[in-house]
Amino acid sequence: MLYQQIHLTLPAWTHDLVDPAATYTSDEEKVALAIDLSRRNVDANSGGPFGAVVFGPDHRVIALGVNRVMPHTCSLAHAETMAYMLAQQRLQQFRLNELGGPVTLATSAQPCCQCYGATMWAGIDRLLIGARAEDVMALTAFDEGPLPADWVGELNKRGIEVVRDVQRDAACAVLKTYGELGGPNY
Amino acid sequence: MLYQQIHLTLPAWTHDLVDPAATYTSDEEKVALAIDLSRRNVDANSGGPFGAVVFGPDHRVIALGVNRVMPHTCSLAHAETMAYMLAQQRLQQFRLNELGGPVTLATSAQPCCQCYGATMWAGIDRLLIGARAEDVMALTAFDEGPLPADWVGELNKRGIEVVRDVQRDAACAVLKTYGELGGPNY
Repeated sequence: MLYQQIHLTLPAWTHDLVDPAATYTSDEEKVALAIDLSRRNVDANSGGPFGAVVFGPDHRVIALGVNRVMPHTCSLAHAETMAYMLAQQRLQQFRLNELGGPVTLATSAQPCCQCYGATMWAGIDRLLIGARAEDVMALTAFDEGPLPADWVGELNKRGIEVVRDVQRDAACAVLKTYGELGGPNY
Repeated sequence: MLYQQIHLTLPAWTHDLVDPAATYTSDEEKVALAIDLSRRNVDANSGGPFGAVVFGPDHRVIALGVNRVMPHTCSLAHAETMAYMLAQQRLQQFRLNELGGPVTLATSAQPCCQCYGATMWAGIDRLLIGARAEDVMALTAFDEGPLPADWVGELNKRGIEVVRDVQRDAACAVLKTYGELGGPNY
């Protein structure tokens, strides 16, 4: 029989990690939470070394995401895509900012080619990035995939502001640990 | 409370549509099935005008996909990504061709930027495309998003063969109908 249903979850350790009423006002605080998720995901062996968080205009968390590729045998289950899907389910909007923004994604590392494309359609206004793609590829065995030459400009054209190198060193520290452990590149 | 789970489904009309033992030997037959899904998805009002199918080395269907963005308020739920996720669940492999290929994706229209990226990681060997991105954008209000300049070459580099314009007219006919109906571009 062909399969009809997909069921993806966040690991149990995320369930009470964040107070939905807490505010993360600065860009640094937002990315620090994404990096914290990336580190905890490695420590718990619940997926790859990536974390992402969707924040609303009030600087509160709308949804968390971590890499779940191996636990769910699902190449779509990256940190950013999990965060987008969970945020869209919670708000019941397939464009997160349709009822007003700005909506922000903070991610521990630059989105790969898949999450880059997903970012075009998710309905965010700001993209905050920790580690660069070249950091990911230098410190781990992950391939980040091909992007348009002016990938930042293409996001800007669609109204998405990009801020890079936020907490870059802290993000790289998690990737370095993972790379030294020889973790799988999925 | 933050959300922890994502649940995505194919519409009920897909459940007994295909005999899992049937073979679709030629490229034309494979894309014709994807186009049939795109048409039925419009007729049933169960999502956007896109269909995709993952085929195994024996030319049998591994998984179907149709656009489910609006029914599931999920911008990730494109035809290609649904087909990849369902195929990966069924085979319990996050790289579909890890146990041997070739694995083929047939899609009614050129993958958008999100599905292009997803195609890099899904583990396919062949990508068969009906309508071109310019057809989609000429016949409907959909944006296909930015791709690397040499998007075919980037797939080839990763061992993925690309065949375009397979059943292009039939694929365009569905898009034309949808565009004339003024369907939403999600």
